[in-house]
Amino acid sequence: MKVESFIPPLRTLMGPGPSDINPRVLAAMARPTIGHLDPRFIELMDSIKELLKYAFKTQNEVTFPISGPGSAGMEACFANLVEEGDKVLVCINGVFGQRMYENVLRNGGVPIVIEDSWGEPIDLNKVEDALKKDDDIKIISFVHAETSTGVLSDAKALGQIAKDKIIIADTVTSLAGSPLYVDQWGLDAVYSGSQKCLSAPPGLSPVSFSEKALSKIKTRKSKVKSWFLDLNLVLNYWSGDQARSYHHTAPINSLYALHESLVLLKEEGLENAWKRHHDLSSYLENQLKGLGFEYLVHPDYRTPQLNAVTIPEKIKDKLFREILLNQYNIEIGAGLGPLAGSIFRIGLMGASCTYKNIDYLINAIKRISINY
Amino acid sequence: MKVESFIPPLRTLMGPGPSDINPRVLAAMARPTIGHLDPRFIELMDSIKELLKYAFKTQNEVTFPISGPGSAGMEACFANLVEEGDKVLVCINGVFGQRMYENVLRNGGVPIVIEDSWGEPIDLNKVEDALKKDDDIKIISFVHAETSTGVLSDAKALGQIAKDKIIIADTVTSLAGSPLYVDQWGLDAVYSGSQKCLSAPPGLSPVSFSEKALSKIKTRKSKVKSWFLDLNLVLNYWSGDQARSYHHTAPINSLYALHESLVLLKEEGLENAWKRHHDLSSYLENQLKGLGFEYLVHPDYRTPQLNAVTIPEKIKDKLFREILLNQYNIEIGAGLGPLAGSIFRIGLMGASCTYKNIDYLINAIKRISINY
Repeated sequence: MKVESFIPPLRTLMGPGPSDINPRVLAAMARPTIGHLDPRFIELMDSIKELLKYAFKTQNEVTFPISGPGSAGMEACFANLVEEGDKVLVCINGVFGQRMYENVLRNGGVPIVIEDSWGEPIDLNKVEDALKKDDDIKIISFVHAETSTGVLSDAKALGQIAKDKIIIADTVTSLAGSPLYVDQWGLDAVYSGSQKCLSAPPGLSPVSFSEKALSKIKTRKSKVKSWFLDLNLVLNYWSGDQARSYHHTAPINSLYALHESLVLLKEEGLENAWKRHHDLSSYLENQLKGLGFEYLVHPDYRTPQLNAVTIPEKIKDKLFREILLNQYNIEIGAGLGPLAGSIFRIGLMGASCTYKNIDYLINAIKRISINY
Repeated sequence: MKVESFIPPLRTLMGPGPSDINPRVLAAMARPTIGHLDPRFIELMDSIKELLKYAFKTQNEVTFPISGPGSAGMEACFANLVEEGDKVLVCINGVFGQRMYENVLRNGGVPIVIEDSWGEPIDLNKVEDALKKDDDIKIISFVHAETSTGVLSDAKALGQIAKDKIIIADTVTSLAGSPLYVDQWGLDAVYSGSQKCLSAPPGLSPVSFSEKALSKIKTRKSKVKSWFLDLNLVLNYWSGDQARSYHHTAPINSLYALHESLVLLKEEGLENAWKRHHDLSSYLENQLKGLGFEYLVHPDYRTPQLNAVTIPEKIKDKLFREILLNQYNIEIGAGLGPLAGSIFRIGLMGASCTYKNIDYLINAIKRISINY
């Protein structure tokens, strides 16, 4: 067994996440660990909650990071909100909608599925029809920005259509990259990830729950199937006054990092961050089109931070990504599921969304193509 | 809203975890993030698995860190192993045994409880009797080192008594601090935490599953209630050959840190680490007894890394801990549950287990007591 310290290569992360991390965030992560019940740590928790409310555009008191990756955040929403027999309308137009379906099943819910093509947004008419057809539907769930395709669905309109239901939205890729108004749009439970447009290391999942969602959770007839993610318990640690009671040991240093990434977001301004993602995605698009790449997704519903482009015939998917990684230290994403082999997913998330990265990527593609 | 970087105080962590972190581990955590499917990251994953096998003294192929704190590791064991109606013998002698009970219930199992006093180890006779009385018991679960009391139960003997059952053991506090032989003792599913005697930041839970455990998981009739923790899915990412398929985004930087902490453990040698915990705990004991503290737990079954001592009458629990924290930056732990207010829990875990820390603590206690 080779036993030596691991020194990672210095990559440029332009895939579907994790994204590049600002050195200030990495430095924060390496600060000395303190206890999870330390009064100074409680202050940090409060500050993280305030900054997440800013990022989500919400006044929801219950806004905090789950101590696990986005998948744990997804599960926190479904495990707490879905009870045995609850009908849940699940909108699927990519990988992450499918996961929602699995989550409904495992929590004893009854999923009712609406499917749209990968690369298309959720069809509002179908949702409207499905809700009309079945009064018993209690919850609707959808992915705001599908990381598998780069499609942005109309969360605002979905919020209107389903305003009498509990709305669960996956905002993993949209948070801090695209306009997102949790309160205005009436989203009741949202989850995200630290490693996308917030550009903190992976491992935390910011969530936010509305009063409507909390009242469903508080009046559950059965216990949440997950002890670790049971909000009734987690909130004894993350909410309330000074006295926080121990539930689990929070990932202290990861929270230092998330906090610093949120401080950076506040310094830039949320709307400025949205604009940066929008503008630089247009710049990337012009460059990529000049090289023969076509976008999978129509511009009307494309999310700027995840650019899915079809691979020109002369380029071999895996080989090309390997050259990018090995010769240029650039990571881009492969296609998932039915799109494997036919698209690249080029991320412009958070700290990765810079002219410097785009110019480097475009010129690397040019150089590889010449020698191909 | 005050928006500024968070600079934590420099604490000496002598509570029940997190423990002090070696600067090499903090430095590892701050290295540049790479992707969770990066070939270099796959190498790191393999190295972590090998080192965890070393730490657990196991050849179990399925030995890896769950992407969440110890509570998530506990849930991974119960959610995967317990099926609807499974009878589980749960040994409770502190807080963490109680959590096991909750985990059995939430996964649809039928808990059969054996209770021992807080401060006493699990009574082997009771376990033997319970197993004789009911042939249907499929699983037995116990806590090796109870962090709430500092009691070390006889995991070796329990492994013998229950060798026909699936044995789940909580090794959160014991791993790397006390002798632990997962294979020799016949433990089938164990979970631990990164922030105790491994002295990495909190947020990861090393687990290990025997072939017997895996075969129960593979022949389940129902799906695991947690998608995030379903081993059948997680192992597509953590096991197998080169081709790892995406399940969730691993907490990259936290894994850098865990790896470095394991490299440090290998450099010291596991048996040397056990001995250090043992020897320094004796040293601490002598000092504390000189100051009027009494140990809660009999020396025959006391775990060296967590020293539970009754608080002398003249010392006020909360005030005293506050002075230690505010004037000396020393964190020690309070009592939990029925022991709240009557004991201190003094941790000597991993990098916190040094003469330097003990001398500093003892002298701080002396200085405070003089001015009290």
